[in-house]
Amino acid sequence: MIEEVEKLSREFVQELGDESLSLYERLPKGKRVRAKLILKIAKNNKDAIKLASIVELIHAASLLHDDVIDDATTRRGVESINAIYGNKSAIMLGDILYSKGYFELVDLDIKIAKIISDAVTKLSIGELMDVELSKKFNPSFDRYFDMIYNKTAVLIEASSKSAAIVANKDAEVYGIYGKNLGLAFQVIDDILDITQDSKTLGKPSMSDFKEGKTTLPYIYLYESMNEDERKKLLNLYKKELSYEEERWIGDKMREHGAIERAYNYASKLGDEALKAIEAHDESQLTSIMKNVIERSF
Amino acid sequence: MIEEVEKLSREFVQELGDESLSLYERLPKGKRVRAKLILKIAKNNKDAIKLASIVELIHAASLLHDDVIDDATTRRGVESINAIYGNKSAIMLGDILYSKGYFELVDLDIKIAKIISDAVTKLSIGELMDVELSKKFNPSFDRYFDMIYNKTAVLIEASSKSAAIVANKDAEVYGIYGKNLGLAFQVIDDILDITQDSKTLGKPSMSDFKEGKTTLPYIYLYESMNEDERKKLLNLYKKELSYEEERWIGDKMREHGAIERAYNYASKLGDEALKAIEAHDESQLTSIMKNVIERSF
Repeated sequence: MIEEVEKLSREFVQELGDESLSLYERLPKGKRVRAKLILKIAKNNKDAIKLASIVELIHAASLLHDDVIDDATTRRGVESINAIYGNKSAIMLGDILYSKGYFELVDLDIKIAKIISDAVTKLSIGELMDVELSKKFNPSFDRYFDMIYNKTAVLIEASSKSAAIVANKDAEVYGIYGKNLGLAFQVIDDILDITQDSKTLGKPSMSDFKEGKTTLPYIYLYESMNEDERKKLLNLYKKELSYEEERWIGDKMREHGAIERAYNYASKLGDEALKAIEAHDESQLTSIMKNVIERSF
Repeated sequence: MIEEVEKLSREFVQELGDESLSLYERLPKGKRVRAKLILKIAKNNKDAIKLASIVELIHAASLLHDDVIDDATTRRGVESINAIYGNKSAIMLGDILYSKGYFELVDLDIKIAKIISDAVTKLSIGELMDVELSKKFNPSFDRYFDMIYNKTAVLIEASSKSAAIVANKDAEVYGIYGKNLGLAFQVIDDILDITQDSKTLGKPSMSDFKEGKTTLPYIYLYESMNEDERKKLLNLYKKELSYEEERWIGDKMREHGAIERAYNYASKLGDEALKAIEAHDESQLTSIMKNVIERSF
Protein backbone atom coordinates (compact mmCIF):
# COMPACT_ATOMS: atom_id res chain seq x y z
CA MET A 1 0.00 0.00 0.00
CA ILE A 2 2.93 2.33 0.57
CA GLU A 3 3.59 1.81 -3.15
CA GLU A 4 0.18 3.29 -3.92
CA VAL A 5 1.11 6.31 -1.84
CA GLU A 6 4.40 6.72 -3.72
CA LYS A 7 2.57 6.37 -7.01
CA LEU A 8 -0.01 9.00 -6.13
CA SER A 9 2.63 11.44 -4.85
CA ARG A 10 4.47 11.02 -8.13
CA GLU A 11 1.27 11.62 -10.11
CA PHE A 12 0.64 14.80 -8.14
CA VAL A 13 4.11 16.07 -8.97
CA GLN A 14 3.82 15.00 -12.60
CA GLU A 15 0.83 17.32 -12.95
CA LEU A 16 3.19 20.17 -12.08
CA GLY A 17 5.44 19.65 -15.08
CA ASP A 18 8.51 17.71 -16.11
CA GLU A 19 10.96 20.00 -14.43
CA SER A 20 9.34 19.64 -11.01
CA LEU A 21 9.14 15.89 -11.48
CA SER A 22 12.77 15.46 -12.42
CA LEU A 23 13.87 17.42 -9.36
CA TYR A 24 11.41 15.53 -7.14
CA GLU A 25 12.79 12.21 -8.29
CA ARG A 26 16.22 13.19 -7.00
CA LEU A 27 14.94 13.32 -3.43
CA PRO A 28 15.98 10.37 -1.26
CA LYS A 29 12.95 8.30 -0.35
CA GLY A 30 13.28 8.31 3.42
CA LYS A 31 11.50 6.05 5.85
CA ARG A 32 8.00 7.34 4.99
CA VAL A 33 7.18 7.29 8.71
CA ARG A 34 4.19 9.61 8.32
CA ALA A 35 2.68 7.75 5.38
CA LYS A 36 3.07 4.37 7.04
CA LEU A 37 1.53 5.68 10.23
CA ILE A 38 -1.48 7.03 8.32
CA LEU A 39 -1.97 3.72 6.52
CA LYS A 40 -1.71 1.77 9.77
CA ILE A 41 -4.34 3.93 11.47
CA ALA A 42 -6.77 4.43 8.56
CA LYS A 43 -6.25 1.07 6.85
CA ASN A 44 -6.94 0.47 3.17
CA ASN A 45 -8.93 3.47 2.14
CA LYS A 46 -8.75 5.87 -0.80
CA ASP A 47 -8.73 8.93 1.43
CA ALA A 48 -5.96 7.44 3.55
CA ILE A 49 -3.75 7.00 0.49
CA LYS A 50 -4.48 10.53 -0.62
CA LEU A 51 -3.80 11.91 2.85
CA ALA A 52 -0.54 9.99 3.07
CA SER A 53 0.60 11.24 -0.36
CA ILE A 54 -0.18 14.83 0.58
CA VAL A 55 1.63 14.59 3.91
CA GLU A 56 4.69 13.11 2.21
CA LEU A 57 4.72 16.00 -0.32
CA ILE A 58 4.48 18.51 2.51
CA HIS A 59 7.18 16.72 4.48
CA ALA A 60 9.45 16.70 1.41
CA ALA A 61 8.82 20.43 0.95
CA SER A 62 9.78 21.13 4.55
CA LEU A 63 12.99 19.12 4.23
CA LEU A 64 13.93 20.97 1.02
CA HIS A 65 13.61 24.30 2.81
CA ASP A 66 15.28 23.01 5.99
CA ASP A 67 18.34 21.95 3.98
CA VAL A 68 18.62 25.42 2.47
CA ILE A 69 18.20 27.05 5.89
CA ASP A 70 20.71 24.72 7.56
CA ASP A 71 23.17 24.86 4.62
CA ALA A 72 23.00 21.07 4.58
CA THR A 73 24.95 19.45 1.78
CA THR A 74 23.67 15.94 2.34
CA ARG A 75 20.35 14.29 3.14
CA ARG A 76 20.31 10.61 4.13
CA GLY A 77 23.86 10.23 2.96
CA VAL A 78 23.26 11.55 -0.56
CA GLU A 79 23.80 15.07 -1.86
CA SER A 80 20.92 17.41 -1.07
CA ILE A 81 18.93 19.19 -3.82
CA ASN A 82 20.32 22.57 -2.73
CA ALA A 83 23.84 21.16 -2.96
CA ILE A 84 23.30 19.79 -6.49
CA TYR A 85 20.97 22.37 -8.07
CA GLY A 86 21.42 25.36 -5.77
CA ASN A 87 19.26 27.01 -3.14
CA LYS A 88 16.90 28.55 -5.67
CA SER A 89 15.74 25.24 -7.11
CA ALA A 90 15.30 23.82 -3.62
CA ILE A 91 13.20 26.80 -2.49
CA MET A 92 11.05 26.70 -5.63
CA LEU A 93 10.47 22.96 -5.55
CA GLY A 94 9.57 23.27 -1.85
CA ASP A 95 7.02 25.97 -2.62
CA ILE A 96 5.56 23.94 -5.47
CA LEU A 97 5.19 20.81 -3.33
CA TYR A 98 3.69 22.73 -0.42
CA SER A 99 1.07 24.39 -2.58
CA LYS A 100 0.21 21.21 -4.46
CA GLY A 101 -0.18 19.52 -1.09
CA TYR A 102 -2.64 22.19 0.03
CA PHE A 103 -4.50 22.09 -3.25
CA GLU A 104 -5.14 18.37 -2.89
CA LEU A 105 -5.86 18.69 0.82
CA VAL A 106 -8.95 20.76 0.16
CA ASP A 107 -10.69 17.68 -1.24
CA LEU A 108 -10.47 15.89 2.08
CA ASP A 109 -12.54 16.53 5.22
CA ILE A 110 -12.29 20.22 6.18
CA LYS A 111 -11.14 19.23 9.70
CA ILE A 112 -8.14 17.53 8.11
CA ALA A 113 -7.24 20.56 6.00
CA LYS A 114 -7.36 22.64 9.17
CA ILE A 115 -5.19 20.22 11.18
CA ILE A 116 -2.57 19.82 8.47
CA SER A 117 -2.28 23.52 7.60
CA ASP A 118 -2.00 24.38 11.28
CA ALA A 119 0.78 21.80 11.56
CA VAL A 120 2.67 23.33 8.64
CA THR A 121 2.55 26.77 10.23
CA LYS A 122 3.99 25.25 13.41
CA LEU A 123 6.57 23.36 11.36
CA SER A 124 7.87 26.64 9.93
CA ILE A 125 7.82 28.28 13.34
CA GLY A 126 9.73 25.25 14.67
CA GLU A 127 12.41 25.78 12.04
CA LEU A 128 12.65 29.43 13.09
CA MET A 129 12.99 28.33 16.75
CA ASP A 130 15.68 25.83 15.78
CA VAL A 131 17.72 28.54 14.07
CA GLU A 132 17.29 30.83 17.09
CA LEU A 133 18.20 28.09 19.60
CA SER A 134 21.30 27.20 17.58
CA LYS A 135 22.78 30.65 18.09
CA LYS A 136 23.94 29.99 21.64
CA PHE A 137 24.05 27.07 24.05
CA ASN A 138 20.50 26.39 25.24
CA PRO A 139 20.26 24.85 28.71
CA SER A 140 16.43 24.94 28.77
CA PHE A 141 14.53 21.68 28.60
CA ASP A 142 11.26 23.54 27.89
CA ARG A 143 12.60 25.53 24.98
CA TYR A 144 14.13 22.39 23.48
CA PHE A 145 10.86 20.51 23.73
CA ASP A 146 8.84 23.38 22.38
CA MET A 147 11.15 23.43 19.35
CA ILE A 148 11.15 19.69 18.61
CA TYR A 149 7.40 19.55 19.13
CA ASN A 150 6.92 22.15 16.41
CA LYS A 151 9.71 21.06 14.12
CA THR A 152 9.29 17.29 14.24
CA ALA A 153 6.35 16.04 16.27
CA VAL A 154 3.61 18.31 15.02
CA LEU A 155 3.30 16.84 11.53
CA ILE A 156 3.37 13.30 12.90
CA GLU A 157 0.70 14.27 15.42
CA ALA A 158 -1.36 15.87 12.62
CA SER A 159 -0.92 12.78 10.40
CA SER A 160 -2.09 10.56 13.19
CA LYS A 161 -5.11 12.73 14.06
CA SER A 162 -6.11 13.12 10.42
CA ALA A 163 -5.83 9.40 9.77
CA ALA A 164 -8.08 8.82 12.78
CA ILE A 165 -10.65 11.20 11.25
CA VAL A 166 -10.51 9.30 7.95
CA ALA A 167 -11.11 6.06 9.83
CA ASN A 168 -13.74 7.46 12.20
CA LYS A 169 -11.51 6.83 15.18
CA ASP A 170 -10.89 9.08 18.20
CA ALA A 171 -8.67 11.91 16.86
CA GLU A 172 -7.56 13.07 20.32
CA VAL A 173 -6.31 9.64 21.35
CA TYR A 174 -4.38 9.13 18.13
CA GLY A 175 -3.08 12.67 18.39
CA ILE A 176 -1.44 11.84 21.71
CA TYR A 177 0.11 8.75 20.18
CA GLY A 178 1.45 10.70 17.18
CA LYS A 179 2.81 13.57 19.22
CA ASN A 180 4.69 11.24 21.57
CA LEU A 181 5.93 9.14 18.67
CA GLY A 182 7.36 12.27 17.06
CA LEU A 183 8.97 13.55 20.23
CA ALA A 184 10.46 10.15 21.08
CA PHE A 185 11.71 9.79 17.51
CA GLN A 186 13.55 13.10 17.77
CA VAL A 187 15.08 12.35 21.18
CA ILE A 188 16.37 9.00 19.93
CA ASP A 189 17.73 10.74 16.82
CA ASP A 190 19.56 13.18 19.09
CA ILE A 191 21.01 10.31 21.11
CA LEU A 192 22.20 8.45 17.99
CA ASP A 193 24.02 11.58 16.82
CA ILE A 194 26.22 11.11 19.90
CA THR A 195 26.47 7.35 20.22
CA GLN A 196 26.78 6.22 16.59
CA ASP A 197 29.83 6.39 14.40
CA SER A 198 29.77 8.56 11.30
CA LYS A 199 29.53 5.64 8.90
CA THR A 200 26.29 4.38 10.43
CA LEU A 201 24.89 7.91 10.63
CA GLY A 202 25.80 8.91 7.07
CA LYS A 203 27.16 12.19 8.53
CA PRO A 204 29.87 13.10 11.07
CA SER A 205 28.94 12.10 14.60
CA MET A 206 28.25 14.80 17.19
CA SER A 207 27.36 17.10 14.33
CA ASP A 208 24.38 18.47 16.28
CA PHE A 209 26.65 20.03 18.88
CA LYS A 210 29.08 21.29 16.27
CA GLU A 211 26.16 22.99 14.50
CA GLY A 212 24.98 24.61 17.71
CA LYS A 213 22.09 22.27 18.46
CA THR A 214 21.90 21.66 22.20
CA THR A 215 19.87 18.47 22.23
CA LEU A 216 18.42 16.70 25.26
CA PRO A 217 21.55 14.73 26.25
CA TYR A 218 23.56 17.98 26.28
CA ILE A 219 20.90 19.70 28.38
CA TYR A 220 21.00 16.87 30.93
CA LEU A 221 24.80 16.82 30.81
CA TYR A 222 25.08 20.55 31.46
CA GLU A 223 22.54 20.28 34.28
CA SER A 224 24.63 17.77 36.19
CA MET A 225 28.10 19.22 35.55
CA ASN A 226 30.14 21.33 37.96
CA GLU A 227 31.28 24.85 37.07
CA ASP A 228 34.63 23.78 35.59
CA GLU A 229 33.09 21.10 33.41
CA ARG A 230 30.37 23.47 32.23
CA LYS A 231 32.99 25.99 31.25
CA LYS A 232 34.86 23.40 29.24
CA LEU A 233 31.67 22.15 27.56
CA LEU A 234 30.60 25.67 26.60
CA ASN A 235 34.05 26.19 25.20
CA LEU A 236 33.58 23.29 22.78
CA TYR A 237 30.11 24.43 21.68
CA LYS A 238 29.71 25.07 17.95
CA LYS A 239 33.33 24.15 17.19
CA GLU A 240 35.00 21.54 15.06
CA LEU A 241 35.89 18.89 17.68
CA SER A 242 39.16 16.97 17.89
CA TYR A 243 39.06 13.25 18.59
CA GLU A 244 40.04 13.95 22.23
CA GLU A 245 37.32 16.51 22.64
CA GLU A 246 34.67 14.20 21.23
CA ARG A 247 35.89 11.53 23.61
CA TRP A 248 35.77 13.87 26.56
CA ILE A 249 32.13 14.70 25.79
CA GLY A 250 31.34 11.00 25.37
CA ASP A 251 33.01 10.14 28.69
CA LYS A 252 31.19 12.90 30.53
CA MET A 253 27.88 11.80 28.99
CA ARG A 254 28.49 8.34 30.43
CA GLU A 255 29.77 9.62 33.78
CA HIS A 256 26.72 11.82 34.33
CA GLY A 257 24.26 9.34 32.82
CA ALA A 258 23.03 11.96 30.35
CA ILE A 259 22.37 9.53 27.49
CA GLU A 260 20.58 7.17 29.84
CA ARG A 261 18.37 9.96 31.16
CA ALA A 262 17.51 11.05 27.63
CA TYR A 263 16.76 7.47 26.66
CA ASN A 264 14.54 7.05 29.71
CA TYR A 265 12.69 10.18 28.77
CA ALA A 266 12.04 8.88 25.25
CA SER A 267 10.93 5.62 26.75
CA LYS A 268 8.51 7.41 29.08
CA LEU A 269 7.06 9.25 26.07
CA GLY A 270 6.60 5.90 24.38
CA ASP A 271 4.82 4.44 27.40
CA GLU A 272 2.42 7.37 27.53
CA ALA A 273 1.62 6.89 23.85
CA LEU A 274 0.94 3.20 24.31
CA LYS A 275 -1.23 3.92 27.32
CA ALA A 276 -3.32 6.32 25.23
CA ILE A 277 -4.12 3.70 22.58
CA GLU A 278 -4.25 0.77 25.03
CA ALA A 279 -7.99 0.27 24.69
CA HIS A 280 -7.90 0.40 20.89
CA ASP A 281 -6.24 -2.89 19.99
CA GLU A 282 -3.51 -1.38 17.83
CA SER A 283 -0.74 -3.94 17.92
CA GLN A 284 0.95 -2.44 14.85
CA LEU A 285 1.15 0.99 16.43
CA THR A 286 2.62 -0.59 19.53
CA SER A 287 5.37 -2.16 17.50
CA ILE A 288 6.06 1.05 15.54
CA MET A 289 6.61 2.83 18.85
CA LYS A 290 8.81 0.03 20.17
CA ASN A 291 10.90 0.13 17.01
CA VAL A 292 11.39 3.87 17.37
CA ILE A 293 12.56 3.55 20.96
CA GLU A 294 14.81 0.58 20.26
CA ARG A 295 16.20 1.63 16.91
CA SER A 296 19.93 1.90 16.66
CA PHE A 297 20.27 3.65 13.28
CA MET B 1 -11.75 49.18 4.54
CA ILE B 2 -8.23 48.50 3.37
CA GLU B 3 -7.25 49.42 6.94
CA GLU B 4 -9.40 46.57 8.22
CA VAL B 5 -7.56 44.24 5.88
CA GLU B 6 -4.19 45.47 7.11
CA LYS B 7 -5.35 45.07 10.70
CA LEU B 8 -6.53 41.50 10.17
CA SER B 9 -3.33 40.51 8.33
CA ARG B 10 -1.37 41.89 11.25
CA GLU B 11 -3.52 39.95 13.73
CA PHE B 12 -2.93 36.75 11.77
CA VAL B 13 0.81 37.27 11.91
CA GLN B 14 0.71 38.26 15.58
CA GLU B 15 -0.77 34.84 16.35
CA LEU B 16 2.45 33.37 14.95
CA GLY B 17 4.68 34.98 17.55
CA ASP B 18 6.64 38.18 18.10
CA GLU B 19 9.54 37.20 15.91
CA SER B 20 7.37 36.63 12.85
CA LEU B 21 5.54 39.89 13.51
CA SER B 22 8.67 41.97 13.84
CA LEU B 23 9.99 40.61 10.53
CA TYR B 24 6.60 41.06 8.87
CA GLU B 25 6.47 44.70 9.91
CA ARG B 26 9.67 45.35 8.01
CA LEU B 27 8.00 44.50 4.70
CA PRO B 28 7.15 47.51 2.52
CA LYS B 29 3.39 47.89 2.24
CA GLY B 30 3.02 47.85 -1.53
CA LYS B 31 0.00 48.93 -3.49
CA ARG B 32 -2.29 46.21 -2.09
CA VAL B 33 -3.68 45.72 -5.60
CA ARG B 34 -5.12 42.29 -4.80
CA ALA B 35 -6.78 43.37 -1.56
CA LYS B 36 -8.30 46.48 -3.11
CA LEU B 37 -9.61 44.46 -6.03
CA ILE B 38 -11.25 41.97 -3.69
CA LEU B 39 -12.90 44.74 -1.69
CA LYS B 40 -14.14 46.43 -4.84
CA ILE B 41 -15.72 43.23 -6.14
CA ALA B 42 -17.08 41.79 -2.90
CA LYS B 43 -17.89 45.08 -1.15
CA ASN B 44 -18.14 45.44 2.64
CA ASN B 45 -18.29 41.92 3.85
CA LYS B 46 -16.53 40.00 6.61
CA ASP B 47 -15.48 37.22 4.26
CA ALA B 48 -14.12 39.73 1.76
CA ILE B 49 -11.88 41.28 4.40
CA LYS B 50 -10.69 37.86 5.47
CA LEU B 51 -10.05 36.79 1.87
CA ALA B 52 -8.14 40.00 1.17
CA SER B 53 -5.98 39.57 4.30
CA ILE B 54 -5.17 35.99 3.34
CA VAL B 55 -4.29 36.89 -0.24
CA GLU B 56 -2.01 39.69 0.96
CA LEU B 57 -0.22 37.25 3.31
CA ILE B 58 0.24 34.79 0.46
CA HIS B 59 1.42 37.55 -1.88
CA ALA B 60 3.92 38.76 0.75
CA ALA B 61 5.18 35.17 1.15
CA SER B 62 5.71 34.85 -2.59
CA LEU B 63 7.64 38.14 -2.75
CA LEU B 64 9.86 37.06 0.15
CA HIS B 65 10.80 33.88 -1.69
CA ASP B 66 11.12 35.68 -5.05
CA ASP B 67 13.62 38.11 -3.56
CA VAL B 68 15.73 35.23 -2.28
CA ILE B 69 15.53 33.45 -5.63
CA ASP B 70 16.33 36.62 -7.60
CA ASP B 71 19.06 37.73 -5.15
CA ALA B 72 17.17 41.03 -4.91
CA THR B 73 18.61 43.48 -2.41
CA THR B 74 15.78 45.98 -2.59
CA ARG B 75 12.01 45.86 -2.75
CA ARG B 76 10.11 49.06 -3.54
CA GLY B 77 13.21 51.09 -2.98
CA VAL B 78 13.90 49.78 0.53
CA GLU B 79 16.24 46.98 1.56
CA SER B 80 14.66 43.55 1.17
CA ILE B 81 14.25 41.17 4.13
CA ASN B 82 16.82 38.77 2.66
CA ALA B 83 19.27 41.66 2.34
CA ILE B 84 18.79 42.77 5.97
CA TYR B 85 18.23 39.48 7.80
CA GLY B 86 19.59 36.93 5.34
CA ASN B 87 18.00 34.37 3.06
CA LYS B 88 17.12 32.02 5.90
CA SER B 89 14.84 34.47 7.66
CA ALA B 90 13.18 35.38 4.38
CA ILE B 91 12.53 31.72 3.49
CA MET B 92 11.19 30.94 6.95
CA LEU B 93 8.94 33.98 7.14
CA GLY B 94 7.64 33.13 3.66
CA ASP B 95 6.81 29.58 4.75
CA ILE B 96 5.10 30.84 7.89
CA LEU B 97 2.96 33.35 5.98
CA TYR B 98 2.02 30.84 3.29
CA SER B 99 0.90 28.24 5.80
CA LYS B 100 -0.97 30.74 7.94
CA GLY B 101 -2.71 31.90 4.78
CA TYR B 102 -3.80 28.35 3.98
CA PHE B 103 -4.89 27.73 7.55
CA GLU B 104 -7.22 30.72 7.47
CA LEU B 105 -8.35 29.93 3.92
CA VAL B 106 -9.95 26.68 5.01
CA ASP B 107 -12.65 28.67 6.86
CA LEU B 108 -13.88 30.22 3.62
CA ASP B 109 -15.92 28.54 0.86
CA ILE B 110 -14.17 25.37 -0.29
CA LYS B 111 -14.24 26.62 -3.90
CA ILE B 112 -12.15 29.60 -2.80
CA ALA B 113 -9.61 27.42 -1.02
CA LYS B 114 -9.27 25.38 -4.19
CA ILE B 115 -8.87 28.44 -6.45
CA ILE B 116 -6.30 30.13 -4.22
CA SER B 117 -4.20 27.02 -3.57
CA ASP B 118 -4.19 26.23 -7.28
CA ALA B 119 -3.03 29.79 -7.93
CA VAL B 120 -0.17 29.44 -5.47
CA THR B 121 1.04 26.27 -7.17
CA LYS B 122 1.04 28.15 -10.47
CA LEU B 123 2.76 31.10 -8.81
CA SER B 124 5.65 28.86 -7.79
CA ILE B 125 5.78 27.24 -11.20
CA GLY B 126 5.80 30.75 -12.70
CA GLU B 127 8.83 31.63 -10.61
CA LEU B 128 10.55 28.47 -11.84
CA MET B 129 9.69 29.44 -15.44
CA ASP B 130 11.03 32.95 -14.85
CA VAL B 131 14.36 31.56 -13.64
CA GLU B 132 14.53 29.22 -16.64
CA LEU B 133 13.62 31.96 -19.13
CA SER B 134 16.25 34.26 -17.63
CA LYS B 135 19.04 31.88 -18.53
CA LYS B 136 19.12 32.88 -22.19
CA PHE B 137 17.45 35.42 -24.48
CA ASN B 138 13.84 34.32 -24.99
CA PRO B 139 12.30 35.42 -28.31
CA SER B 140 9.01 33.55 -27.70
CA PHE B 141 5.87 35.56 -27.05
CA ASP B 142 4.02 32.44 -25.88
CA ARG B 143 6.61 31.41 -23.33
CA TYR B 144 6.75 34.96 -21.99
CA PHE B 145 2.99 35.10 -21.59
CA ASP B 146 2.82 31.68 -20.02
CA MET B 147 5.37 32.83 -17.45
CA ILE B 148 3.77 36.18 -16.57
CA TYR B 149 0.36 34.54 -16.42
CA ASN B 150 1.62 32.13 -13.79
CA LYS B 151 3.93 34.47 -11.96
CA THR B 152 1.80 37.60 -11.83
CA ALA B 153 -1.68 37.28 -13.26
CA VAL B 154 -2.78 34.04 -11.67
CA LEU B 155 -3.12 35.36 -8.11
CA ILE B 156 -4.95 38.46 -9.31
CA GLU B 157 -7.25 36.26 -11.36
CA ALA B 158 -7.82 34.01 -8.34
CA SER B 159 -8.46 37.03 -6.10
CA SER B 160 -11.00 38.31 -8.53
CA LYS B 161 -12.76 34.97 -8.95
CA SER B 162 -12.82 34.34 -5.22
CA ALA B 163 -14.19 37.79 -4.48
CA ALA B 164 -16.95 37.11 -7.00
CA ILE B 165 -17.80 33.89 -5.16
CA VAL B 166 -17.97 35.77 -1.84
CA ALA B 167 -20.33 38.29 -3.46
CA ASN B 168 -22.40 35.73 -5.38
CA LYS B 169 -21.28 37.18 -8.68
CA ASP B 170 -20.21 35.36 -11.84
CA ALA B 171 -16.75 33.93 -11.05
CA GLU B 172 -15.83 33.29 -14.69
CA VAL B 173 -16.51 36.86 -15.78
CA TYR B 174 -14.52 38.34 -12.91
CA GLY B 175 -11.80 35.78 -13.55
CA ILE B 176 -11.32 37.16 -17.08
CA TYR B 177 -11.15 40.68 -15.70
CA GLY B 178 -8.57 39.69 -13.06
CA LYS B 179 -6.43 37.69 -15.45
CA ASN B 180 -6.26 40.53 -17.96
CA LEU B 181 -5.65 43.10 -15.23
CA GLY B 182 -2.68 41.03 -14.03
CA LEU B 183 -1.25 40.53 -17.51
CA ALA B 184 -1.68 44.19 -18.44
CA PHE B 185 -0.14 45.25 -15.13
CA GLN B 186 2.95 43.16 -15.84
CA VAL B 187 3.33 44.38 -19.43
CA ILE B 188 3.12 48.00 -18.25
CA ASP B 189 5.65 47.21 -15.51
CA ASP B 190 7.97 45.81 -18.16
CA ILE B 191 7.57 48.96 -20.28
CA LEU B 192 8.27 51.27 -17.34
CA ASP B 193 11.50 49.39 -16.64
CA ILE B 194 12.66 50.71 -20.02
CA THR B 195 11.07 54.14 -20.20
CA GLN B 196 11.45 55.42 -16.65
CA ASP B 197 14.59 56.79 -15.02
CA SER B 198 16.09 54.95 -12.08
CA LYS B 199 14.94 57.53 -9.52
CA THR B 200 11.28 57.06 -10.42
CA LEU B 201 11.65 53.29 -10.53
CA GLY B 202 13.54 52.99 -7.23
CA LYS B 203 15.96 50.66 -9.05
CA PRO B 204 18.30 51.00 -12.06
CA SER B 205 16.40 51.31 -15.34
CA MET B 206 16.60 48.50 -17.88
CA SER B 207 17.39 46.16 -15.01
CA ASP B 208 15.10 43.49 -16.49
CA PHE B 209 17.36 43.05 -19.52
CA LYS B 210 20.51 43.16 -17.41
CA GLU B 211 19.05 40.39 -15.24
CA GLY B 212 18.22 38.28 -18.26
CA LYS B 213 14.49 38.97 -18.40
CA THR B 214 13.40 39.27 -22.03
CA THR B 215 10.15 41.16 -21.55
CA LEU B 216 7.55 41.93 -24.21
CA PRO B 217 9.18 45.10 -25.65
CA TYR B 218 12.43 43.15 -26.17
CA ILE B 219 10.54 40.30 -27.84
CA TYR B 220 8.88 42.76 -30.26
CA LEU B 221 12.16 44.58 -30.77
CA TYR B 222 14.02 41.38 -31.63
CA GLU B 223 11.23 40.31 -33.96
CA SER B 224 11.53 43.44 -36.08
CA MET B 225 15.32 43.76 -36.09
CA ASN B 226 17.66 42.78 -38.92
CA GLU B 227 20.43 40.24 -38.41
CA ASP B 228 23.10 42.78 -37.47
CA GLU B 229 20.90 44.52 -34.96
CA ARG B 230 19.85 41.22 -33.45
CA LYS B 231 23.46 40.25 -33.03
CA LYS B 232 24.24 43.49 -31.26
CA LEU B 233 21.17 43.16 -29.01
CA LEU B 234 22.04 39.60 -28.04
CA ASN B 235 25.52 40.78 -27.26
CA LEU B 236 24.18 43.23 -24.67
CA TYR B 237 21.90 40.65 -23.06
CA LYS B 238 22.48 40.05 -19.35
CA LYS B 239 25.34 42.58 -19.17
CA GLU B 240 25.99 45.76 -17.27
CA LEU B 241 25.08 48.40 -19.86
CA SER B 242 27.00 51.60 -20.54
CA TYR B 243 25.08 54.83 -21.05
CA GLU B 244 25.60 54.51 -24.82
CA GLU B 245 24.35 50.95 -24.88
CA GLU B 246 21.22 51.86 -22.94
CA ARG B 247 20.63 54.70 -25.36
CA TRP B 248 21.09 52.43 -28.34
CA ILE B 249 18.45 50.05 -26.99
CA GLY B 250 16.13 52.98 -26.28
CA ASP B 251 16.60 54.38 -29.77
CA LYS B 252 15.97 51.03 -31.41
CA MET B 253 12.86 50.52 -29.28
CA ARG B 254 11.52 53.81 -30.63
CA GLU B 255 12.67 53.14 -34.20
CA HIS B 256 10.92 49.75 -34.32
CA GLY B 257 7.90 50.87 -32.32
CA ALA B 258 8.46 48.07 -29.79
CA ILE B 259 7.27 50.02 -26.75
CA GLU B 260 4.22 51.18 -28.63
CA ARG B 261 3.34 47.64 -29.71
CA ALA B 262 3.72 46.43 -26.12
CA TYR B 263 1.58 49.29 -24.88
CA ASN B 264 -1.09 48.50 -27.48
CA TYR B 265 -1.07 44.90 -26.38
CA ALA B 266 -1.62 45.89 -22.74
CA SER B 267 -4.35 48.19 -23.88
CA LYS B 268 -6.02 45.38 -25.83
CA LEU B 269 -5.92 43.20 -22.72
CA GLY B 270 -7.57 46.04 -20.83
CA ASP B 271 -10.32 46.38 -23.41
CA GLU B 272 -11.06 42.65 -23.26
CA ALA B 273 -11.34 42.88 -19.49
CA LEU B 274 -13.72 45.80 -19.66
CA LYS B 275 -15.79 44.03 -22.26
CA ALA B 276 -16.12 41.02 -19.96
CA ILE B 277 -17.56 43.08 -17.10
CA GLU B 278 -19.47 45.50 -19.35
CA ALA B 279 -22.89 44.24 -18.35
CA HIS B 280 -22.09 44.32 -14.63
CA ASP B 281 -22.02 48.03 -13.88
CA GLU B 282 -18.57 48.06 -12.29
CA SER B 283 -17.34 51.61 -12.75
CA GLN B 284 -14.67 51.19 -10.09
CA LEU B 285 -13.19 48.16 -11.84
CA THR B 286 -13.18 50.13 -15.06
CA SER B 287 -11.15 52.89 -13.47
CA ILE B 288 -8.73 50.43 -11.81
CA MET B 289 -8.01 48.99 -15.23
CA LYS B 290 -7.61 52.42 -16.79
CA ASN B 291 -5.21 53.44 -14.04
CA VAL B 292 -3.12 50.33 -14.64
CA ILE B 293 -2.87 51.02 -18.36
CA GLU B 294 -2.16 54.70 -17.92
CA ARG B 295 0.11 54.57 -14.91
CA SER B 296 3.52 56.06 -15.30
CA PHE B 297 5.21 54.81 -12.11
